[in-house]
Amino acid sequence: MSTRNESYLVGLVGDGITESLTPPMHEREADHHGLRYLYRPVDLAVIGRPGEDVGQLLSAGRDLGFNAFNITHPCKQLVLEHLDEIDPQAEAIQAVNTVLLQDGRFIGHNTDCSGFTRGFEKGLDGVAPGRVVQFGSGGAGSAVAEALLGLGAVQLSLVDMDVARAAERAAELAARYPQATVESVTAAQAPGQIAAADGVVNATPMGMHHHPGAPFDLDLLRPTHWVADVVYLPMDTPLVRAARALGCAVLDGGHMAVGQAVDAFALITGTTPDSARMRAHFLQLTGQEAPAGTDSGHVLGGDAL
Amino acid sequence: MSTRNESYLVGLVGDGITESLTPPMHEREADHHGLRYLYRPVDLAVIGRPGEDVGQLLSAGRDLGFNAFNITHPCKQLVLEHLDEIDPQAEAIQAVNTVLLQDGRFIGHNTDCSGFTRGFEKGLDGVAPGRVVQFGSGGAGSAVAEALLGLGAVQLSLVDMDVARAAERAAELAARYPQATVESVTAAQAPGQIAAADGVVNATPMGMHHHPGAPFDLDLLRPTHWVADVVYLPMDTPLVRAARALGCAVLDGGHMAVGQAVDAFALITGTTPDSARMRAHFLQLTGQEAPAGTDSGHVLGGDAL
Repeated sequence: MSTRNESYLVGLVGDGITESLTPPMHEREADHHGLRYLYRPVDLAVIGRPGEDVGQLLSAGRDLGFNAFNITHPCKQLVLEHLDEIDPQAEAIQAVNTVLLQDGRFIGHNTDCSGFTRGFEKGLDGVAPGRVVQFGSGGAGSAVAEALLGLGAVQLSLVDMDVARAAERAAELAARYPQATVESVTAAQAPGQIAAADGVVNATPMGMHHHPGAPFDLDLLRPTHWVADVVYLPMDTPLVRAARALGCAVLDGGHMAVGQAVDAFALITGTTPDSARMRAHFLQLTGQEAPAGTDSGHVLGGDAL
Repeated sequence: MSTRNESYLVGLVGDGITESLTPPMHEREADHHGLRYLYRPVDLAVIGRPGEDVGQLLSAGRDLGFNAFNITHPCKQLVLEHLDEIDPQAEAIQAVNTVLLQDGRFIGHNTDCSGFTRGFEKGLDGVAPGRVVQFGSGGAGSAVAEALLGLGAVQLSLVDMDVARAAERAAELAARYPQATVESVTAAQAPGQIAAADGVVNATPMGMHHHPGAPFDLDLLRPTHWVADVVYLPMDTPLVRAARALGCAVLDGGHMAVGQAVDAFALITGTTPDSARMRAHFLQLTGQEAPAGTDSGHVLGGDAL
């Protein structure tokens, strides 16, 4: 009788995410499917709440009729204790970026991992991960590490300012991926690791507008490296620019940004989105019309991690 | 760049309102204007919260990106203390059914009053209110009493099980409408008042599916009475049926239900809705195609007060 049973109310909880492109990506795709869909950013910086309040925000969303939340930095791990159920892959990663509300219960998923995998297969078609040095082992980094091992990386070296976190993550991944070598390395060891690596990945906030710079000395890059970044605001981070200048195979953060949105949309609605259309819309939102190589991808704000 | 700045997220806070027709009325009208609009019922009975929590729900809505709330029984007066600003007419009525969130502030309005007035002028065209007996002086009743005096009622007798509330309301109205006689009367005095009245109004929940019956002995009705009801679930309350059987001029609750929604939509969006289209949609939702006189207006639930 009414349309509200088929409508979707979704929020994105994170710090500094007011200008995230995920809400318009979802809303536009929903329009193509004729779904009533409204996606609100819930920016912790704007409402003055700490990341530890993510459970309260989810409960408030349940009372007010939300169907789902995307969860981003700094809440991807903080949210775990508030879940009633968790998807096995998200549990393995110990990070959640999508929470479905079903019959009043919170069910956690991780579409960063599947989204990165999707992006890698599309954007680095034909590249074997090989030996990888990855910077960052937090919420996004855990998902990317899982994806890289799933893609067949033979060696994965995790570098994190939080050395204990990197070590814990490496030990957990090593136990589940015995065919690969997974280890945590210090920042001092990183240059030697990069010299011997096939690929380098940034899964830290470095390179975002609010975190300018790169996670390592970019003079260490070689043309034979493949390079991936999870930052998409801007897409042409210093790392991406340096890698392109050298002629490296490059996966910019836009691929993961679109990939996680594609998979979250499918989880939330039960409807398969058109991933090419979502990517085209994303590029339009960032001011790019071509899929790669342009240098005009500046947008404000930040929602990469 | 995105559409979310022009989108509207609205909630209805009240007890037992899951099947309210206000959400689909708003959403359908918004569709005609090309607005992204999502309206969620927040049913206190479903989420297990008391009416006293209305302030907490509003604050949660502010954090989660709501633009406005409609407020209904039992919160129309409970919400007053949580407002940052109140429209003068709503303040006079001391009841609020619409709260706008603007720059983080809660601004209260009352569209029940304007909605009843709009309905009276359309549904009882040419009828002078004259001497009126009104049952109920709560949130909806306060708005209806204000509307009746604004429409020129010369005498208004308020009957309420809460005698003190009726007396307080009558005194307040008498002070602001010195040209009319406003008084509270007991249930025992009501039959004599009805015999001498031109019109009788029900502004109690009596007649709703969950509150079967009528607010007074229907044998007291005469064909010369005009009769108004604020209950619209169902629209053919025992009072409305009895009045129609006698040939009375009748204003069913649908008029106020549509009128309050028309005015709330305009406040929330700044866009003038098509009131005839909203009424036609309302009648379609209730299973009626003709504007009056049919006997098929049964829908479940209740959101009249």
